[in-house]
Amino acid sequence: MSRAFNFGAGPAAIPLEVLEEAQKNLVDFNGEGLSIMEASHRSKMYDDVHTEALSLMRELYEIPEDYDILLLQGGASLQFAMVPLNLSLGGKAAYADTGSWSSKAIKEAKIQNIDFDIVASSKESSHNHIPENITFADDLDYAYITSNNTIYGTQYKSFPSTKSPLVVDASSDIFSYPVDWSKVDLMFAGAQKNAGPSGVTIVIIKKELLNRADESVPSMLKYKTHADNNSLYNTPPTFGIYMLSLILKWIKNSGGIKAIQKANEAKATLLYDAIDNSNGFYVGHAQKDSRSLMNVSFNIRDKDADLEAKLIKEATEAKMIGLKGHRSIGGLRASIYNAMTLEGVQALVDLMNKFADENR
Amino acid sequence: MSRAFNFGAGPAAIPLEVLEEAQKNLVDFNGEGLSIMEASHRSKMYDDVHTEALSLMRELYEIPEDYDILLLQGGASLQFAMVPLNLSLGGKAAYADTGSWSSKAIKEAKIQNIDFDIVASSKESSHNHIPENITFADDLDYAYITSNNTIYGTQYKSFPSTKSPLVVDASSDIFSYPVDWSKVDLMFAGAQKNAGPSGVTIVIIKKELLNRADESVPSMLKYKTHADNNSLYNTPPTFGIYMLSLILKWIKNSGGIKAIQKANEAKATLLYDAIDNSNGFYVGHAQKDSRSLMNVSFNIRDKDADLEAKLIKEATEAKMIGLKGHRSIGGLRASIYNAMTLEGVQALVDLMNKFADENR
Repeated sequence: MSRAFNFGAGPAAIPLEVLEEAQKNLVDFNGEGLSIMEASHRSKMYDDVHTEALSLMRELYEIPEDYDILLLQGGASLQFAMVPLNLSLGGKAAYADTGSWSSKAIKEAKIQNIDFDIVASSKESSHNHIPENITFADDLDYAYITSNNTIYGTQYKSFPSTKSPLVVDASSDIFSYPVDWSKVDLMFAGAQKNAGPSGVTIVIIKKELLNRADESVPSMLKYKTHADNNSLYNTPPTFGIYMLSLILKWIKNSGGIKAIQKANEAKATLLYDAIDNSNGFYVGHAQKDSRSLMNVSFNIRDKDADLEAKLIKEATEAKMIGLKGHRSIGGLRASIYNAMTLEGVQALVDLMNKFADENR
Repeated sequence: MSRAFNFGAGPAAIPLEVLEEAQKNLVDFNGEGLSIMEASHRSKMYDDVHTEALSLMRELYEIPEDYDILLLQGGASLQFAMVPLNLSLGGKAAYADTGSWSSKAIKEAKIQNIDFDIVASSKESSHNHIPENITFADDLDYAYITSNNTIYGTQYKSFPSTKSPLVVDASSDIFSYPVDWSKVDLMFAGAQKNAGPSGVTIVIIKKELLNRADESVPSMLKYKTHADNNSLYNTPPTFGIYMLSLILKWIKNSGGIKAIQKANEAKATLLYDAIDNSNGFYVGHAQKDSRSLMNVSFNIRDKDADLEAKLIKEATEAKMIGLKGHRSIGGLRASIYNAMTLEGVQALVDLMNKFADENR
């Protein structure tokens, strides 16, 4: 098989070793005579997987004991609604708007008629940076940020300090660097970028926030329901959680989150250097101090759509896929999540250098 | 490999051919160089799978054109909340309470403070039958039934007629018999019994019901959001939908839903005959006219827990698993969904006959 280098934004690349392990066990899980997909969520066979996913996550991500880890469904899009439903006490909330995902979260707060402010926005500059010195009041029901902006390729270098509970949508950079939990009260992420296949949503929540939801909130939308039932209130997405457990093992075998972070920095440096050293042929979308280590969005010269399409075509022919930028800013986007190899980034950089020479 | 006969209630057995096909393609999907799990939900590679799942379902299940098919997340448990959120117009609803799942649906209607009646209940007799002549008023916002009761092993033989929109929770018998769509306005099912791994929820809804939801309902909980976006409003559970597409192909290759129904009748007859011909050693929980073709719940004599445990142990040693009955009625439960083979049921019946002879 000729494996593609998958630069897609999500669902995204999964480590080859993880896929091979899943394949080996797909029909007959550890000699049990059935697939993990076929196992009851109340069976020991599945419970071992569930427990391992939770305990490995707590260990590797250094999640303090006063936080619960929930494994849910519905993606970040359902969290946009669950956050206000669970955290709003009828007071004020505040959002930082740094891209499409923040905007969608804000839309759901509006639908629920929550009182909130937008304390910072990068909208006027095509979301090409994380606003400096974002300040949240200390008496909010919650403060809300998106740690990494998949489309625009921007990322917080550190989280704002606030006495209000800080909610972080980490869908596109979970498990890619150690988290300072003293700053974060609720983190959530759809799994499909750094943590497995789509269909699993991770929520890491400070226990003291579990009791805020109104009685009228549906059981499935209350964090407390899932916390009280070890994420087994109803049938969880068992196969996705199995894949998550394999990915966490892969992170552990790779040396843990800090080693992953170091590898991510090396990959991103390689790619941003290629952009910066192209004499203006490639132009990064994000301001340098806001650059994401996960998504590298760039154009060719002054958005030369023909050349951009040509490069994407050449890349696809060389089995480098998923490089088309989001329609809102065009160009190219290389998503280089945890599972992307340095070899893959090197192959892309080699192609980009050659392409720039040939088309300058 | 020695494949187990999996009689578990869900997540449940998946046809071996389906698992083998998934295994073959798990790392490299049709030579594309990546797993279907890694493919963008906006890619042609995934779109083909998504489209095939939807079109096969419409074809095999003979779903009329004035119904939309939605592929969601959250299981039946989330549907218990979404049904009143989407269908209630502030008038009255009505539920038939035929077991645990109906009761949970009723609980969520209560949480939402919906005005509703319980028009029939089998609670007083341990839910051992489907009440006869269930009558729903004609001016309800909706009428609600659970077509098959997983725990108690009862099943509607035909759906009640009503002019009110009829909602059917078919989680444990979807795709097991042809549906008379003239009677059904909304059918939903978690996939993990007859339609794939857990994490996918199928909703088949009459289009005229899509516009009822209040503006204050979160986008992800509005059926219309998903109908308007071909179930791609956000990232769907792509791998689960791929598995669903394989299962639908398997149904087609097996001769379609009617052929599946015939096979199910043969399996159930074999097992119920073993119970009925045991001279009172085995006692079925459900009344004969309410017996489920999917879940066969039974006790040994007058709930002899020791003998029941002994039979479960002997079965497990013979690689027949998942036979422990639900704690609410004890005993044994053999779930014989579409994927259970006649060979598997025959093996169980042989063991049951032998066990009865040895322990009479």
